[in-house]
Amino acid sequence: MSFALHRLATPHSSSDQHDDVLAIATALAQRLASTAVERDRAGGHASQEREWIRESGLLSLSIPREFGGQGADWPVVFQVIRVLAKADSALAHVFAFHHLQLAGIQLYGNAQQQRNLLTTTVEQRLFWGNALNPLDQRTTAKKIEDGYLLNGIKSFSSGSVGSDWLTISAWDIATESALIAVIPSTQKGIAIQADWDAFGQKQTDSGNVHFDDVLLPSELVLQSPGQSPTPQATLRSQVAQLIMANLYLGIGLGAFDSARQYTQEQSRAWFTAGVDKATEDPFIQHRYGELWLLLRPAEVLADQAALALEQAFRQGPLVTAETRGALAIAVAEAKCLAHRAGIEVSSQMFELTGARSTSARYGYDRYWRNVRVHTLHDPVDYKLRDLGRFVLNGSFPEPTSYS
Amino acid sequence: MSFALHRLATPHSSSDQHDDVLAIATALAQRLASTAVERDRAGGHASQEREWIRESGLLSLSIPREFGGQGADWPVVFQVIRVLAKADSALAHVFAFHHLQLAGIQLYGNAQQQRNLLTTTVEQRLFWGNALNPLDQRTTAKKIEDGYLLNGIKSFSSGSVGSDWLTISAWDIATESALIAVIPSTQKGIAIQADWDAFGQKQTDSGNVHFDDVLLPSELVLQSPGQSPTPQATLRSQVAQLIMANLYLGIGLGAFDSARQYTQEQSRAWFTAGVDKATEDPFIQHRYGELWLLLRPAEVLADQAALALEQAFRQGPLVTAETRGALAIAVAEAKCLAHRAGIEVSSQMFELTGARSTSARYGYDRYWRNVRVHTLHDPVDYKLRDLGRFVLNGSFPEPTSYS
Amino acid sequence: MSFALHRLATPHSSSDQHDDVLAIATALAQRLASTAVERDRAGGHASQEREWIRESGLLSLSIPREFGGQGADWPVVFQVIRVLAKADSALAHVFAFHHLQLAGIQLYGNAQQQRNLLTTTVEQRLFWGNALNPLDQRTTAKKIEDGYLLNGIKSFSSGSVGSDWLTISAWDIATESALIAVIPSTQKGIAIQADWDAFGQKQTDSGNVHFDDVLLPSELVLQSPGQSPTPQATLRSQVAQLIMANLYLGIGLGAFDSARQYTQEQSRAWFTAGVDKATEDPFIQHRYGELWLLLRPAEVLADQAALALEQAFRQGPLVTAETRGALAIAVAEAKCLAHRAGIEVSSQMFELTGARSTSARYGYDRYWRNVRVHTLHDPVDYKLRDLGRFVLNGSFPEPTSYS
Amino acid sequence: MSFALHRLATPHSSSDQHDDVLAIATALAQRLASTAVERDRAGGHASQEREWIRESGLLSLSIPREFGGQGADWPVVFQVIRVLAKADSALAHVFAFHHLQLAGIQLYGNAQQQRNLLTTTVEQRLFWGNALNPLDQRTTAKKIEDGYLLNGIKSFSSGSVGSDWLTISAWDIATESALIAVIPSTQKGIAIQADWDAFGQKQTDSGNVHFDDVLLPSELVLQSPGQSPTPQATLRSQVAQLIMANLYLGIGLGAFDSARQYTQEQSRAWFTAGVDKATEDPFIQHRYGELWLLLRPAEVLADQAALALEQAFRQGPLVTAETRGALAIAVAEAKCLAHRAGIEVSSQMFELTGARSTSARYGYDRYWRNVRVHTLHDPVDYKLRDLGRFVLNGSFPEPTSYS
Repeated sequence: MSFALHRLATPHSSSDQHDDVLAIATALAQRLASTAVERDRAGGHASQEREWIRESGLLSLSIPREFGGQGADWPVVFQVIRVLAKADSALAHVFAFHHLQLAGIQLYGNAQQQRNLLTTTVEQRLFWGNALNPLDQRTTAKKIEDGYLLNGIKSFSSGSVGSDWLTISAWDIATESALIAVIPSTQKGIAIQADWDAFGQKQTDSGNVHFDDVLLPSELVLQSPGQSPTPQATLRSQVAQLIMANLYLGIGLGAFDSARQYTQEQSRAWFTAGVDKATEDPFIQHRYGELWLLLRPAEVLADQAALALEQAFRQGPLVTAETRGALAIAVAEAKCLAHRAGIEVSSQMFELTGARSTSARYGYDRYWRNVRVHTLHDPVDYKLRDLGRFVLNGSFPEPTSYS
Repeated sequence: MSFALHRLATPHSSSDQHDDVLAIATALAQRLASTAVERDRAGGHASQEREWIRESGLLSLSIPREFGGQGADWPVVFQVIRVLAKADSALAHVFAFHHLQLAGIQLYGNAQQQRNLLTTTVEQRLFWGNALNPLDQRTTAKKIEDGYLLNGIKSFSSGSVGSDWLTISAWDIATESALIAVIPSTQKGIAIQADWDAFGQKQTDSGNVHFDDVLLPSELVLQSPGQSPTPQATLRSQVAQLIMANLYLGIGLGAFDSARQYTQEQSRAWFTAGVDKATEDPFIQHRYGELWLLLRPAEVLADQAALALEQAFRQGPLVTAETRGALAIAVAEAKCLAHRAGIEVSSQMFELTGARSTSARYGYDRYWRNVRVHTLHDPVDYKLRDLGRFVLNGSFPEPTSYS
Repeated sequence: MSFALHRLATPHSSSDQHDDVLAIATALAQRLASTAVERDRAGGHASQEREWIRESGLLSLSIPREFGGQGADWPVVFQVIRVLAKADSALAHVFAFHHLQLAGIQLYGNAQQQRNLLTTTVEQRLFWGNALNPLDQRTTAKKIEDGYLLNGIKSFSSGSVGSDWLTISAWDIATESALIAVIPSTQKGIAIQADWDAFGQKQTDSGNVHFDDVLLPSELVLQSPGQSPTPQATLRSQVAQLIMANLYLGIGLGAFDSARQYTQEQSRAWFTAGVDKATEDPFIQHRYGELWLLLRPAEVLADQAALALEQAFRQGPLVTAETRGALAIAVAEAKCLAHRAGIEVSSQMFELTGARSTSARYGYDRYWRNVRVHTLHDPVDYKLRDLGRFVLNGSFPEPTSYS
Repeated sequence: MSFALHRLATPHSSSDQHDDVLAIATALAQRLASTAVERDRAGGHASQEREWIRESGLLSLSIPREFGGQGADWPVVFQVIRVLAKADSALAHVFAFHHLQLAGIQLYGNAQQQRNLLTTTVEQRLFWGNALNPLDQRTTAKKIEDGYLLNGIKSFSSGSVGSDWLTISAWDIATESALIAVIPSTQKGIAIQADWDAFGQKQTDSGNVHFDDVLLPSELVLQSPGQSPTPQATLRSQVAQLIMANLYLGIGLGAFDSARQYTQEQSRAWFTAGVDKATEDPFIQHRYGELWLLLRPAEVLADQAALALEQAFRQGPLVTAETRGALAIAVAEAKCLAHRAGIEVSSQMFELTGARSTSARYGYDRYWRNVRVHTLHDPVDYKLRDLGRFVLNGSFPEPTSYS
């Protein structure tokens, strides 16, 4: 087990259950790692690897015990995400977004919806995908008896390909507002395109979902159009944002570990360095120190934000706007730090490993490509503005799908 | 109570005692703040303010209850240092170094020395100063019957002016090694010069101490020449380093608070900004976010390092080299982050407050001058090298007076 | 002659006249340097040193030969400013702003005004000051027969104390627009307060000028109220901005030279560095390289901007908005780089020189204090925005007093 | 013609010949650009595109007129390299290294070698490749009558695949020193492997060259073993280093242009930005300003270094160690700036263009991949050390193949 993982695990590894989960995650990560470089290059849908995830049992990790799940708290879920992201950040994203959908059901759904959907998820080992992109309003909902008729397209639908169920949003023209719902991916009229072609996070199955006169029964609507989200409901975007932070961080830690291993095992000292081994080069040591000082704070603040999320999440409907706001700040801090750490470590790592480490057989460029693509989910400058507004003016970020 | 302090206090404010201590520290800080700008400019010995510190009762804060002290744990001590440093970083340094000497007695002294010195310190409300600078080997010790004869000079002796007792080091020529001892500041032959003339941290009383045939009785020697320090003894430098980190951080937080208050109350929007108030300027908001992302991680990692120090300190003679090493890394992380946060925030704050904020009546330049002088205690590049060596090679920093 | 000056001088040192000017400037700089630390600390009006400047003959440097001046081109003037700023940035500012006023006369004044004012300036060795601050509209002008009556206050009036003549702006209430004029500093009703109290650039004589029913004769009005400035007239703010850039750069180069000299002559190698001398320390060498890479581009781009200014200035009334715009971009590039170089070098230099270099006897903190105060003239973030707008959208900065 | 190119061209576009060359280069660049994304992805040998380069006539660009070449000066050659690199940095590298070999012949070769080789190059439109990597000493030379017998491997041999002639180095075991020579790529026993598999600069044909009892006739040896290189000969590494700088810069400029075009044409304003278009977003404008301040200085200093190289190159055998040293500093400055600009712009550009710009159809990740691979040619930290040593101690970089 690597150094970084070891430190990571320490604060929470109190319970046996937690140890078991981490052991399972670590084993899964190793399995994914063995083909990660090739799959990262080829892209496409990782059906086999998604089955490994399913088989690991970790799809029920965040589901409360009362619904048959493992009832893990959020810090544990995020640790698993990080462990997977170090090895394969695309599948870690698919895994994380599965749990985001489950969080959405708990935050938006009524008691019956929660029971039905979460119990079924456990029993049938369902894999959830996302088709919620709120900035893409091309999917419309038309009220019909007992439900809605959906038409249009939804882009950036992570995990949609190969999913069993989807969370969706649609624009209700009558009320000029959005509804949020769940729906089986196999519902008649749904076509999921595997057309995601970004240069990173290639296997996140983030294609376009097409809706052609799709029937959405009323009982699958989690939030009706025109309904203002409660502070509790708005926690969903914080789950999403903290997932991002942990994915960026996992990529950064993975890059760091790869660099360290390469420097230790393969790098040669520069011929004017006056030392025998690259590991003794003062500039290399210094830069490792610098990069570590990007990762370490991101790690610690992500851990703290996870604890804050756990607390807020467990307050359920009682969560206040202030608690939600403080959480949003903690998450924003962690996300900005993880963004920067991920980008810098994955790019600067090569100053520490040198020209030969760019060979395709290592696939080390995937760290930068993956974190570069993923950190564009929402602009970091607006996250910094949110932070600045808070520390300067005391105003919490306005709850949106991104803040 | 300011925003930053509020966040700071949260994790530890469980006990009533802790609240009381913070209340006392805050009141003391306010008292110091009222004249901090003038005294910072004038420099010199702050005898009146040192008496206020003595009167606050906080000189016994870190002394175990068994010796009559308040038995505060290290996280509390560091919080008090930070609170004071926000208002007056020079006197915070004097205060902190007093407790460093008390830590030294606990780490180096035998049971009788501890009892005698610490009890006396409580009873007589002694103020301790430092004359230990290990890089200055001009003070020699010559073995005589029942003790040593000290001669020479010791530079950078923080808190020496106005002290009651000193911790000293001296170079034993016979064994070519250093001894560590305590001695009353009034011992015959000791002359303390108030000749510290740096452009910052002016009131730290960090002058030269002269020894002219000074008798050092054997029972005041904490560590004899030639004796290798135990891992426990080497914790002293970690206390010192974490004091530094908290002072830097306190200065940074003080600068941040001053800037924020100024921006809110006095800054005008730039005439091409298109907003009414400086607090609405997107660039100003963004930069506040950036600066906060320097301070916040430093704060959180300093808190974590304080917990680690507390744990190691309480292990007493049982502390291992590995625990000590892990602590040194945690402290190094916090110190590097605090160094950078302090320097950057105290310099960049003016981009947020503008030309008029440079008026001498605000004295805002003192933050940069103070943190600039203080962060030169030992070179940050070697701290980064230590960190890099650890994360790359797994080797702990070699225990020295600075690592 | 220092290394940096040597490189600086190279590109233009073609003519004997230029060599003579630089020799005079260098001698003057050395004279100023001998008391710069003390005067910087004390602040106040440097009447003696201003006389030295007057005696040097350099007050007529930028005045065309046809009016009896030395007819130096702008690159030479800026080099002299830089040479002086390395030694004493406050007096360099006073000197530079004198030439800014002379530029203003050439850019705004009619033929007769130019002849009269510039000839008189040469003959009587006049020293000009500034009372033009366009953001301070508290000084009003009331039209009377044959002129205006001025009332109010003008802040940030650099070089006003001890000046012979002033350039002023005033707000004409009738037309709701500003006029620009010149006036003898001794005109009845003018009171110049030496109340500038910033923590840096202390001897720039940048006090408040009070106007109490001051008669401004019509023939001293350079630009009447309501008149739109020509592209030529708007070159004045570019002269001002490039003066700033060269002052920042001079301070940065001065800090760099001081640091280098100190490292070479006094710094000790850190005890774990494994080298004998600080100059052999790899981290110190590396950081000198880094700081140089801040200064060098600022220097080269300031030189290029000076050539561009020279060209535009000599086009006189023929200068187009496009030429003016391209110049504004070149100046903005140089100013941003010089801003950053000045701030970073003056703050980081201490990482290279260490704790003992903070002694008041060196006065090295003055570099940061001076550049920190001076770089707040106008916000760097808006300069960066101007640059961004140009490179992104192709739009030149709107001509204002700051762009 | 793009904005950056326009500015670039200005200082040198005096002559008609220069304009013609730039027009040819620009046309060639456009031709390469049309398939650059696809070829960048596929990698491999670009035989068709190499023919286009040959057909452009630019292979004789740097060859003196006396040998039938175009006699372009170095600033023109570097401009062409930059123009090509903006479109296709791999083929720009192949093109540039062709001219590096021609420079080598002029710097190392005797009069007859120069005449024969350069004339033939013009007449037969030869394409030169590199097999000189001095850090790889696996290729040995054994003295035989009338020449040497070569055996071994040479790695990182840019442009070797598809070349007509090669410059090579080999390790002479007898004298324990290297010889430098030229040889036809088709010489019996030479096998060139197209096995370069880095994640960037894929089409640089930088494979391994194998020598199996290859006969090297004496008259093709440019520098015999044991011979100390003259200052003139050591200019070759400065040509190589400045080629690197211009390639990095070209990539950075290409990335910048792509980003700008995308922001202008396709980016949407962020939904909380309060502006209609991304081009009006203050953070986007600001960051464009910041990135420009990385590129612009690199550009200007690369131009200055090119002039310095031209001067030194034309001095021929008269060039002194001091001129060579000053050149090395100028080149090091430019290379460090270009390194940083290339890396930062190619990575940060995405903050300005957003998630949709990561689609494979744009291929924008190629900028980072190409500059990341190429900037590992030699470690930037040692270049910074060289600069630091010079500005601190006045010592020029020791002439090596990399400095």
